[in-house]
Amino acid sequence: MSKQLMKPITVKGYAVAEPTETQKFLLKPIEQQVNSLGENDIFVDIIASSICYGAFHHVGNIPGHEIVGIVRHVGERVEKDGKIAVGMRVGMGWNYSSCLECGSCKHHFENLCDSSKPFMNAPIGGGFQNGVVWDSRFVYPIPEKLKSVDAAPLFCAGAAVFSPLKLYRESPYSKPNEFKVAVLGLGGLGHLALQFASKMGFHVTALSTSANKEEECRLFGANDFHVHTNENSVKQLNSNFDLILNCVSTDIDTDKFVKMLKPFGKLAIIGVPSSGSIKAGAFAMIMKNRSIVGSGGASNDQIREMLNFAAEHNIKPQIELSSLEKVNEAMEKVVKNQARYRIVMVVDKEIVDKENQ
Amino acid sequence: MSKQLMKPITVKGYAVAEPTETQKFLLKPIEQQVNSLGENDIFVDIIASSICYGAFHHVGNIPGHEIVGIVRHVGERVEKDGKIAVGMRVGMGWNYSSCLECGSCKHHFENLCDSSKPFMNAPIGGGFQNGVVWDSRFVYPIPEKLKSVDAAPLFCAGAAVFSPLKLYRESPYSKPNEFKVAVLGLGGLGHLALQFASKMGFHVTALSTSANKEEECRLFGANDFHVHTNENSVKQLNSNFDLILNCVSTDIDTDKFVKMLKPFGKLAIIGVPSSGSIKAGAFAMIMKNRSIVGSGGASNDQIREMLNFAAEHNIKPQIELSSLEKVNEAMEKVVKNQARYRIVMVVDKEIVDKENQ
Repeated sequence: MSKQLMKPITVKGYAVAEPTETQKFLLKPIEQQVNSLGENDIFVDIIASSICYGAFHHVGNIPGHEIVGIVRHVGERVEKDGKIAVGMRVGMGWNYSSCLECGSCKHHFENLCDSSKPFMNAPIGGGFQNGVVWDSRFVYPIPEKLKSVDAAPLFCAGAAVFSPLKLYRESPYSKPNEFKVAVLGLGGLGHLALQFASKMGFHVTALSTSANKEEECRLFGANDFHVHTNENSVKQLNSNFDLILNCVSTDIDTDKFVKMLKPFGKLAIIGVPSSGSIKAGAFAMIMKNRSIVGSGGASNDQIREMLNFAAEHNIKPQIELSSLEKVNEAMEKVVKNQARYRIVMVVDKEIVDKENQ
Repeated sequence: MSKQLMKPITVKGYAVAEPTETQKFLLKPIEQQVNSLGENDIFVDIIASSICYGAFHHVGNIPGHEIVGIVRHVGERVEKDGKIAVGMRVGMGWNYSSCLECGSCKHHFENLCDSSKPFMNAPIGGGFQNGVVWDSRFVYPIPEKLKSVDAAPLFCAGAAVFSPLKLYRESPYSKPNEFKVAVLGLGGLGHLALQFASKMGFHVTALSTSANKEEECRLFGANDFHVHTNENSVKQLNSNFDLILNCVSTDIDTDKFVKMLKPFGKLAIIGVPSSGSIKAGAFAMIMKNRSIVGSGGASNDQIREMLNFAAEHNIKPQIELSSLEKVNEAMEKVVKNQARYRIVMVVDKEIVDKENQ
């Protein structure tokens, strides 16, 4: 049963508008009223919301799927359950909810649900607002050690790279201490992937197009750094990695990276490439039992584990702070690939300032 | 040290000739003399040799990589080792030898060796002859229960399907008793894949283009049968299999089969498709953590295990007998895809007749 709120809440946010000639991606202010809460839903006052240029930017949608906030109201069932309570600091990511009944949900891979409901289908939309309504079963308490602005990017970028590092870390070929991970694309996802892979104890190589990222990559934990557009580097990397995390969302020369895999090595595809498809030479795959694996986000259990791991190992994104009001400026930077490495919009400045003291 | 034979051996076989207008694949008689044996080599009198239309049909090559015979001579080291001895009945497959020093060889995946030596690089070529010289470390004693003509096709076709069934039988999604295997392409490889998968206890589905193969597929162990060119069948098979063995070597509609995979399902590519590459939609792979995996033959350990498994479970190919002299007729049938399911050339009729008594 849905529960009537004593007093309606007015939420202020930004929705996708028609792009203009000068601005590819434009957001316009929007106000919505929340009058009631579904039995499994909660209302969260947002503290910080970061920008992942993930898909589903249809006109009318409210983007944002890296969200941290404080629970203000809970639905009837949530109150009975007691797992998520008023006052808790929580985070939310790609999924607002899932069916909880299909095979994937029953096997605890809610992220692979046949009919999952992503952020844009949440009752009042995603995180580019000062409040949001979310299914409490897709809400994760945040370890105290993590500041809100540092935690936000973990809910999509962090989850997306943590999951394949957990799932594809074994090989019939390499022993755990020989296991080598490469991270391709050193942006929002990649710079977190370097940190997670390094703190998991793997030998980590950063594969970039620009030599000037080397120093930073090494600070993030990379043991090696290669410019993969350099032919000599590529030759040297033949049959070298057990796992390559492809953190770019443009088309890549798949063959080149497949050949960098050891026998039984895996190229993990995290983002949909611009053309929508992947093409690779069969010979290089067959001759070394190499594979190309899809990786679609993280399960609820993996997200909880990822948060604890990040807190324990002091993993945090490198961020630039902005504000919700400056969302259009921030988005422009993201679209132009100028964010280093994640832009976090401060929504509740008071709390963010307090956490920084 | 190479060892001089007391009396040179004359080997009679067939080598690839220039194709003619009427015959795409033509073989011409050839005679070779064997005077000596390398220290790790053996000489084998061939009993039976079956036809796999595998690659490397260059003019001058002697094809054949599904071979059974009796050891007549052994090199110096082989004699000291004692593992392979004169009089033994043995089989040989794709690899004449490998480097035994690279990472793959040291990890006991000799089939993935960086510089493996396939059958066409054996001292006097492959199995389309009455004798062959082979590295004793790539020679496998045959369980008594298996007749020579039934054993021959196991050395390429059997090995090629057994290996992925062993390697890719686990899933973070399905429990062992829920694990579902599909076999795509019901020819020389596929009809053995059905038998191995069924005897391993998996639920097995045959995917064919022709409805008239159903009865035979069920005899080979298929629990289900579908014509995959039928649109209704395809819809019904969405997210249905944990592992699909692609046993065809033409280009397939990869996307269609990727979508038939459950979450974490694997499409195993065994043969190089005609175009040389694989193209698949990234979305279907990412959304369900599906993968495309290469599978290049079997390791020495896997071949030994496969032979014992076949003997124990009475797995044998369905064969048509022919003779070495009729190799050109047989090859034409294979090229035209008319073999049901494997043509085995009898080389030593006396032994084959004796095994049939």
